[in-house]
Amino acid sequence: MLDICLLGTGGMMPLPSRRLTSLMARYNGSSILIDCGEGTQVAIREKGWSFHDIDVILLTHFHADHVSGLPGLLLSIGNAQRTEPLHIYGPKGAARIVSALRTIAPELPYDVYVTEISGDTTSFEEAGCRIEAFKLNHNVVCYGYSIIVERAGKFDPDKARDNDVPLKLWNRLQKGEEIDFEGRHFTQDMILGPARKGLKVTYCTDTRPVAGIATAAREADLFICEGMYGEEGSEDKAREHKHMTFAEAATLAKKANVRKLWLTHYSPSLVRAKDFVGVATAIFPGAWAARDLESMTLNFEDEE
Amino acid sequence: MLDICLLGTGGMMPLPSRRLTSLMARYNGSSILIDCGEGTQVAIREKGWSFHDIDVILLTHFHADHVSGLPGLLLSIGNAQRTEPLHIYGPKGAARIVSALRTIAPELPYDVYVTEISGDTTSFEEAGCRIEAFKLNHNVVCYGYSIIVERAGKFDPDKARDNDVPLKLWNRLQKGEEIDFEGRHFTQDMILGPARKGLKVTYCTDTRPVAGIATAAREADLFICEGMYGEEGSEDKAREHKHMTFAEAATLAKKANVRKLWLTHYSPSLVRAKDFVGVATAIFPGAWAARDLESMTLNFEDEE
Repeated sequence: MLDICLLGTGGMMPLPSRRLTSLMARYNGSSILIDCGEGTQVAIREKGWSFHDIDVILLTHFHADHVSGLPGLLLSIGNAQRTEPLHIYGPKGAARIVSALRTIAPELPYDVYVTEISGDTTSFEEAGCRIEAFKLNHNVVCYGYSIIVERAGKFDPDKARDNDVPLKLWNRLQKGEEIDFEGRHFTQDMILGPARKGLKVTYCTDTRPVAGIATAAREADLFICEGMYGEEGSEDKAREHKHMTFAEAATLAKKANVRKLWLTHYSPSLVRAKDFVGVATAIFPGAWAARDLESMTLNFEDEE
Repeated sequence: MLDICLLGTGGMMPLPSRRLTSLMARYNGSSILIDCGEGTQVAIREKGWSFHDIDVILLTHFHADHVSGLPGLLLSIGNAQRTEPLHIYGPKGAARIVSALRTIAPELPYDVYVTEISGDTTSFEEAGCRIEAFKLNHNVVCYGYSIIVERAGKFDPDKARDNDVPLKLWNRLQKGEEIDFEGRHFTQDMILGPARKGLKVTYCTDTRPVAGIATAAREADLFICEGMYGEEGSEDKAREHKHMTFAEAATLAKKANVRKLWLTHYSPSLVRAKDFVGVATAIFPGAWAARDLESMTLNFEDEE
């Protein structure tokens, strides 16, 4: 079960009626936060989710609307009695940015580790999930992220017998152990059927609609994508500012064959995003103009 | 006419129902902002006041709840097409803090000047007002500020005649010119009656109730003072964290003989501040548990 909350849906600046775009995901007692603009900590409070369990913060890039809430959030995580380290990932420069912002949050009761990512794509494990970062095309270096919960195959006793796995090892192998026994090496795949469909959420702001996004979002259960502009005729503005229109986001969703698309990161000039969602649903029927605190729980297929 | 808006009333961290404490004052087309925590720019938008006209930002100290909103605010001021320089004042270290926070707001269409203040009291002119800074007693160096609109005396033709001021100079002297004419030096005070009562707003967070505050707030029209704790028995907590109770703020207001006291900078644990205001009004009847966006217009005595 993967809980998703889009804490805000605004781009550029926080508004009284719209918080800045950021995503919080909860999985198995851990939380992952993507981006942290001014006010993100207030949205987390409003949602009622825990600061204490934020193990990872993934930064897309360092424009203020994506990172200005970091010092306040780090302090609030400290006030929630966290003592375990917290890991921040972001593009090259992340260490410098985090360090600069921590000028006003120098003392925390936990360690903060910063990892700078590079390359077109990179992948790492955090909070029990696989995180895949993929490079976007904005006016500064920017990454999108997929949060993936992988799911092993079902235990298959026939396969275990076919592989001559002694009965007494079955339980330990199911728990993930690798075992050397009577001169042989036993691994989990010897007793499990084919891997089952897991869960995947792909998040991407701020960017032009480059091909790598559709690849990265392939078959996602939920694709959260910027739609800075909804109005007809806004294509030039989107190109100029290196953002996307609703139609461009929907085209990516269709190409990636995702299950659902949430539009977000609306321009302050886009007052009622849902008035324009028809442009997106005409291309991809699963499109939705997300609102602040839009939430969803993703379950494994056979648990729905 | 001095317009005052207390943009928020919270201390320590922004809450869904309470923004962080900061003050905006408008005088004669200029605005002065005191402190800028996370969300201050949203409160300014909510109030509907102009970003463009913020000429001065006065920082009390550098705890995140008083300064974390600075980069976002500076960018929003830039988006409001400001090109005139903006002046930031704060305790020693201000230049380093502003520079660190500007890591995520490096490019602005206007210049930012930073002045570090020191000493027990200091005074300077900004935005047509006299600003008096006075040292507080917190766990870091912290200043309170008075915003003072001074008011010259009325034009007094009898006095002008008594001082043998030639009639043709009256108009220019009234406008503030100093004039050398026929071997004599003429100044405005030669044609004006005694200075009249101006306007004064005194702002002070975070601090213990030291004597300098009552001196600084003397006869203020409005005294905005922290009251971190309202509950009975919170005196020890106030001492420990270097803050004040409602009663301590009210005692200062009484001692300073101010006209009105607004309490602010409530602890997140103080859910309904007005439930405790009786403690303050019992000591100083002009006490008021201010709310976010609490506003007031101060007029000169004979314009009320």
